[in-house]
Amino acid sequence: MQHHTLAKLAQHLDAELVGMADYPVNGLSTLMSAQPHQVSFLANMKYTSQLSSCAAGAVVMHPDQAHHFAGNKLLMANPYLGYAKLSALFASKTSFSGVHSTATVAASAVLADNVVVGPGSVVGENTRLEKGVVVGPNTVIGDDCVLGIDTRLEANVTIYYGVTLGQRNIVHSSAVLGSDGFGFAKDGEEWVKIHQLGGVITGNDVEIGAGTTIDRGALDDTEIGHGVKLDNQVQIAHNVILGDYTAIAGCTAIAGSTTLGKHCTIAGACGITGHLQLADGVHVTAMSLVTHSIKEAGAYSSGTSLDDNNKWRRNAARFKQLDQMAKRLKHLEQLSQ
Amino acid sequence: MQHHTLAKLAQHLDAELVGMADYPVNGLSTLMSAQPHQVSFLANMKYTSQLSSCAAGAVVMHPDQAHHFAGNKLLMANPYLGYAKLSALFASKTSFSGVHSTATVAASAVLADNVVVGPGSVVGENTRLEKGVVVGPNTVIGDDCVLGIDTRLEANVTIYYGVTLGQRNIVHSSAVLGSDGFGFAKDGEEWVKIHQLGGVITGNDVEIGAGTTIDRGALDDTEIGHGVKLDNQVQIAHNVILGDYTAIAGCTAIAGSTTLGKHCTIAGACGITGHLQLADGVHVTAMSLVTHSIKEAGAYSSGTSLDDNNKWRRNAARFKQLDQMAKRLKHLEQLSQ
Amino acid sequence: MQHHTLAKLAQHLDAELVGMADYPVNGLSTLMSAQPHQVSFLANMKYTSQLSSCAAGAVVMHPDQAHHFAGNKLLMANPYLGYAKLSALFASKTSFSGVHSTATVAASAVLADNVVVGPGSVVGENTRLEKGVVVGPNTVIGDDCVLGIDTRLEANVTIYYGVTLGQRNIVHSSAVLGSDGFGFAKDGEEWVKIHQLGGVITGNDVEIGAGTTIDRGALDDTEIGHGVKLDNQVQIAHNVILGDYTAIAGCTAIAGSTTLGKHCTIAGACGITGHLQLADGVHVTAMSLVTHSIKEAGAYSSGTSLDDNNKWRRNAARFKQLDQMAKRLKHLEQLSQ
Repeated sequence: MQHHTLAKLAQHLDAELVGMADYPVNGLSTLMSAQPHQVSFLANMKYTSQLSSCAAGAVVMHPDQAHHFAGNKLLMANPYLGYAKLSALFASKTSFSGVHSTATVAASAVLADNVVVGPGSVVGENTRLEKGVVVGPNTVIGDDCVLGIDTRLEANVTIYYGVTLGQRNIVHSSAVLGSDGFGFAKDGEEWVKIHQLGGVITGNDVEIGAGTTIDRGALDDTEIGHGVKLDNQVQIAHNVILGDYTAIAGCTAIAGSTTLGKHCTIAGACGITGHLQLADGVHVTAMSLVTHSIKEAGAYSSGTSLDDNNKWRRNAARFKQLDQMAKRLKHLEQLSQ
Repeated sequence: MQHHTLAKLAQHLDAELVGMADYPVNGLSTLMSAQPHQVSFLANMKYTSQLSSCAAGAVVMHPDQAHHFAGNKLLMANPYLGYAKLSALFASKTSFSGVHSTATVAASAVLADNVVVGPGSVVGENTRLEKGVVVGPNTVIGDDCVLGIDTRLEANVTIYYGVTLGQRNIVHSSAVLGSDGFGFAKDGEEWVKIHQLGGVITGNDVEIGAGTTIDRGALDDTEIGHGVKLDNQVQIAHNVILGDYTAIAGCTAIAGSTTLGKHCTIAGACGITGHLQLADGVHVTAMSLVTHSIKEAGAYSSGTSLDDNNKWRRNAARFKQLDQMAKRLKHLEQLSQ
Repeated sequence: MQHHTLAKLAQHLDAELVGMADYPVNGLSTLMSAQPHQVSFLANMKYTSQLSSCAAGAVVMHPDQAHHFAGNKLLMANPYLGYAKLSALFASKTSFSGVHSTATVAASAVLADNVVVGPGSVVGENTRLEKGVVVGPNTVIGDDCVLGIDTRLEANVTIYYGVTLGQRNIVHSSAVLGSDGFGFAKDGEEWVKIHQLGGVITGNDVEIGAGTTIDRGALDDTEIGHGVKLDNQVQIAHNVILGDYTAIAGCTAIAGSTTLGKHCTIAGACGITGHLQLADGVHVTAMSLVTHSIKEAGAYSSGTSLDDNNKWRRNAARFKQLDQMAKRLKHLEQLSQ
C-alpha cells in the first residue's frame, strides 16, 4: 500500500492542513472505522458526533466544523469532493501492462504509447487506441473504433465496430456498446431486420456501468455527452442523445430516438419511451415512466406508494373504478347544488 | 464501400425504378442527411416536405408520392420494408474468417463448411455448427449444442450446454442462453437447488438482444418460436414459451412457465408473472405488470402517468385511501337517494 | 447417462422405497412425460390424477398419496425437496478438467487440488482458488480474490479484484461482482468519481444469476449472506447487505447502502431505494417500489393492476385528480351533515 503524507494530501485537495505535515496515511475510511494510518472525512453533518471518538490520522472537513476534532485536519469548502479526490489516490491499479501475449490485435490496429491490452482481448482492424488506454482481459473491440486518451475498459466488455469513445471513459464489465438497435419492418406476418448502420459516439469523462447496453444508431449515431454517468444495467436504445453531465441510475431504459438535456438525473428502474425530448435539468424519481416530452426543468414521478399487500389489493381494485367514481362524484355535486 | 447501381437496388427491392439505371450509390441515409452517393426513403408522410431539398441519389417511396420528388425514384408499396431490405446491403461484415488459431474447439465438435469461429471462442463437445455459422470473439458454446445454418453469435455471448438454435438466429453480446432457471425447494430455512435439466430451443430467424438472458427449462425446454425478436436485457425464465413473431422490447421480464401467443408485442420494462397464458395478438404498453392470463387480443396497460413530483405525492397519498373514498362515496349516494 | 438404482435413490433421499430395489433409472421427468427409465415426482396435489397414466419407473410422493400409484414409489414427507435432491444426481457435469492450456493464471495465484480453470480464463495475482473450484471458459477473476471450496463460476463471468466468495457459490454467465459502485461528487457542473475502495463478500451456498451485477462497496464491503439466491439481471448497488436465505427474483434493483433482513423474498422487477432497512421475512410482490424502511415482516405491494388500455387511460387520467376528488368528497360530506 502506498503512503502519502498529509502535506501531499493537502496539496492534492487544495485544502488547508492543520496538523502534522509529515504524518503518513495509506488508506481512506469512514469516521467510525478509520485507523490512525487512514484519513477520513465529514461531509454529512449528522455524523459530526462521531468525530469525538474518531481514530483517523486526519479528517477532511469544512473549516466551520474544525473545532469538533482535535486531531489532524484538512479543511476545505467541499469535503465530499475532497473524499472523491482522495479516493483516486487509494484506488487499486491494474496488474497488467503492455499487450499480453494471448491478446489478438489486428495488424492494422494502431496502438499509442502506454497502452495496456489484457489477456485474451481482441482489437479489430483499423481500430485506434490512444495513449494510456487500458483494455481489460477478454474484452473485445471491433473494427474501425477509436478509444480516446486514458479510456479504460474493464474485463469482458464488448465494443462493436465503428464506435468512438472520448477521453477518460470507463466502461465496466459485461457492458455492450454498439449492438444493433431494435428495428424491424413488417412484411406480412414476419419481421424484416433493419440493419443498423449508425455508430455510437461518447464524449470525455463518461462512465458506463456493468451490464449496461448502448445500441448503435439506425442511420445516424447514438450520442452520449461529456461527463455522462450511467449506472449498471442501463439500456440506451438506438439514436438516443444524452446531454452533458446527465446521470442515470441502475436498470433505467430509454427507448429509441429520445433526447435528454444536460444535467438531468434519472433515478433507477425508470422507463422513458421513444421519440421524446427532455429539457435540461429534468429529475425523474425511481421507477417512473415517462411517456411525453418534458419542457421544463423539475422533478417528475409516476406510480403508487408501497402499502401492506391487503390494503393495496383493495385500493388497486378501486383504481379500476376511478373514472366511474369521478363521474358519480360529479353527479352528487350537481344534486347538492 | 461497395457500390450498387439503382437497377440492382430495384431488383433487390422488387421496386419500379424511375430514373438512371446505372447510377451508383454506396450508402443509405435519412432524407435530410443523404448525399448524392446515397439512397434514402420516405416511409412516414410527415417527412414529405423534406423531399424538395433532398440531395439523395435516389429515394425509395410509394408510387402515390412520386410526384413530390424530381430525382431518381424506387417505387414500391411498402417503402419502410424497402428501407429494411436496403439496410442489409449496406451492413458491415465481420473481418474474421475460418477458425481462429486462438479458439478452443472440442475434438468431437462438428463444424460445417464456411463456419467462422473468432479469436478466443470456445466450442464444446458434440456441438454442431451448421453451414455459415459465425461465432464472435470470446463467445462460449457448451457441449451438445446445435446452431442452425447462418446463425450468428456476436462477441462475448454464452450458450450453455444442450441449447439448440434454429437457422439465421442473431445473438448479441453478453446475452446468455441456457443458464439455470431460478428453482429451489425449501428444506427448513435453507434453499435446496433444483438443477435445471431441460434445455433451450429456438426457431428460425430469432434475434436476441445484448445482455438478454434465457434460462434453460427445469425438466422440459424453454421455447422461443420462429421470427421472435427480443431486445436488450430481456429476461426469459425457465419453461417460458414464446409464440412465433412475438416481439419484446428492452428490459422486460417474463417469469417461469408463462406462455405468450403469436404476434404479441410487449413494450419495454414490463413484467409478466409466472404460469400465465397470453393469447395471440396481445399488446402490452411500457412498464405494465401482467399478473393474470389474457384470453383476448388487444392492448393492455397498468401503472399511472407521469406528473409533477409535488402533485404526484398528493395523489399517491390519496391512492392509499381509495377504498375508503369509494365507501364514503357510496354512503353519500345512499344519503342522497 | 448415468444409471441409478431405486435403492440408491431411496438412500439419497432418505425415502421409503416401495417396489424394486434394483430397478435402474437414468433421468427425471414430469408425471406426463416420464418414461419407464425415468423417475418422476408428485409435489402439487392438482396433478394427482396424472398418476393413473404415468409411465415413470418410480414416483417420489408423500406416503398419504401412495395408494394412487401402482408402480415403484419413493415415499417421503416433502416430495418437492425430493425432486430437488434428485435433480442434482442427473445434472450435467462440465467437460473440462485441470487448468486449460489457454488460461492465464498469475504466478502468485494459489490453486488448491481439483481446481478446474477453463479455456481462456484469467486468474489474477494473489488470488486463491480453494479445493474443487470450477472457473468456466473466458471468465476473468481479478487480483486478491478468494473463491471458497466447490464454488463454481460459469463462462464469461467477471470477478473484479478483492472479492471474496464463500463455499459452494454458483455464479452464472455475464454476471459481474465487484464493479464500481455509482458514486460521484459534484464539482461545479461536473461529476468527480468516488473510487470504490471496498470489496464484495459472499457467504456459503450463494447463487447469482446470469447478468446479475453486484457492486463493490465505497469504503466498506457489499455483503451477501449465506444461502442467498439472486435470479438473473438483479442489480445490487454498493454497500447493500443481504441477510441469510433471502431470495430475489429477476430484474430487481436495490440501491446503495440498503440492508435486507433474513428470509426475505423480493419478486421480479422491484425497486428498493437506498439507505433503507428491511426487516426479516419481508415479502415484496412483483414490480413494487420500496421507498421507506419496513419494520415488520409481511407482504407489501405498489402499482396498479393491468386493465384494458382504453379503460386504463381513463382511470390513469383520473389518478391525477385524486387529491382534488378527495377534497370534493370531503366537501360533499360536510354539506350532507
